[in-house]
Amino acid sequence: MGTDRKDEGPLDALIRSLAGLPGLGPRSARRIALHLLASKTEVMAPFMAALAQAAESVHTCRSCGNLDFSDICRICRDERRSRQTLCVVAGVADLWALERTGAYKGRYHVLGGVLSALDGVGPDDLRIASLLQKVKDEGIQELILALSATVDGQATAHYLMDRLPAGALKVTRLAHGIPVGGELDHLDDGTIVTALKSRAAL
Amino acid sequence: MGTDRKDEGPLDALIRSLAGLPGLGPRSARRIALHLLASKTEVMAPFMAALAQAAESVHTCRSCGNLDFSDICRICRDERRSRQTLCVVAGVADLWALERTGAYKGRYHVLGGVLSALDGVGPDDLRIASLLQKVKDEGIQELILALSATVDGQATAHYLMDRLPAGALKVTRLAHGIPVGGELDHLDDGTIVTALKSRAAL
Repeated sequence: MGTDRKDEGPLDALIRSLAGLPGLGPRSARRIALHLLASKTEVMAPFMAALAQAAESVHTCRSCGNLDFSDICRICRDERRSRQTLCVVAGVADLWALERTGAYKGRYHVLGGVLSALDGVGPDDLRIASLLQKVKDEGIQELILALSATVDGQATAHYLMDRLPAGALKVTRLAHGIPVGGELDHLDDGTIVTALKSRAAL
Repeated sequence: MGTDRKDEGPLDALIRSLAGLPGLGPRSARRIALHLLASKTEVMAPFMAALAQAAESVHTCRSCGNLDFSDICRICRDERRSRQTLCVVAGVADLWALERTGAYKGRYHVLGGVLSALDGVGPDDLRIASLLQKVKDEGIQELILALSATVDGQATAHYLMDRLPAGALKVTRLAHGIPVGGELDHLDDGTIVTALKSRAAL
């Protein structure tokens, strides 16, 4: 209700639950709760049905960690995709971002996050053991570490590098540089320095 | 999945449903869907339970349009609140904002929106008939029109003014002026002109 803070009712509980979702705060949570409750049959019921349907039918792929409707996801099952190239991403959102480009024809491995001392994420919290096993068992030739260019992302990449078998396996990372369409003026110094160092001949 | 747009699965349906909520777009909807699905038992299940609980137990007050757990809301039932003063607000969020101040001790009437030619909201879409009835039946002495200082809000206020009984009923609106803590420099001309015209003696 918002009038009496002593007794948390179902409405406060819903607002608190919404406010805990990524990107939402108390104000946007209140707005969404009111929107849902204002039309229970037209908005709230279909929303709850969509949630229930997704909760029931969406599974994490046993092989790569992607989300899909079967135990082994569509990408892992797709025979046209190269088995020799494996792209390591932190999360499913990163996998989707790469898929949207349509430029990658190998398979993926979703770590489920990056190592982070601050957030208490250690190697056992991520799908690292299964990645190393996969590299060993499946004759992967190239491993693309598509991790964010943040401190934690790069620490994770280094951690993996140290544990990957030396030799035939080629390990690459995404290129650093100026984003396409990006203005020099708005970029941080680190990006400009990297772009300068990796400059290409015209 | 995001890889194949032809077949919309439960995941796409959930993302579309989330993206339809106020303040959310496709990107934030994707992020929330992944957050929910990443921990079904710890995040998604409690969230769905909070939704179901709110859907079941939160009702619209028959008298004022507020949301509460009974047919007649706590504010309408509160005998300490003046029956002579009625504050007209567009939505429940506005009612909550006024309640948070603790400065108002009368009752409310939630219109459920404002008149808007652009959005196709006419008088019959709002709780206007029941407001006029209430004013007639319950001996209201002051009606505070706490509507937004927007074109639609002010048009709604004028519409109500035209239909309210002339005579004993005192109709007021919230004061216009400089927000407390507001800097002159950042305010629009209209607000400054209004504040100047309504200047108060020190």
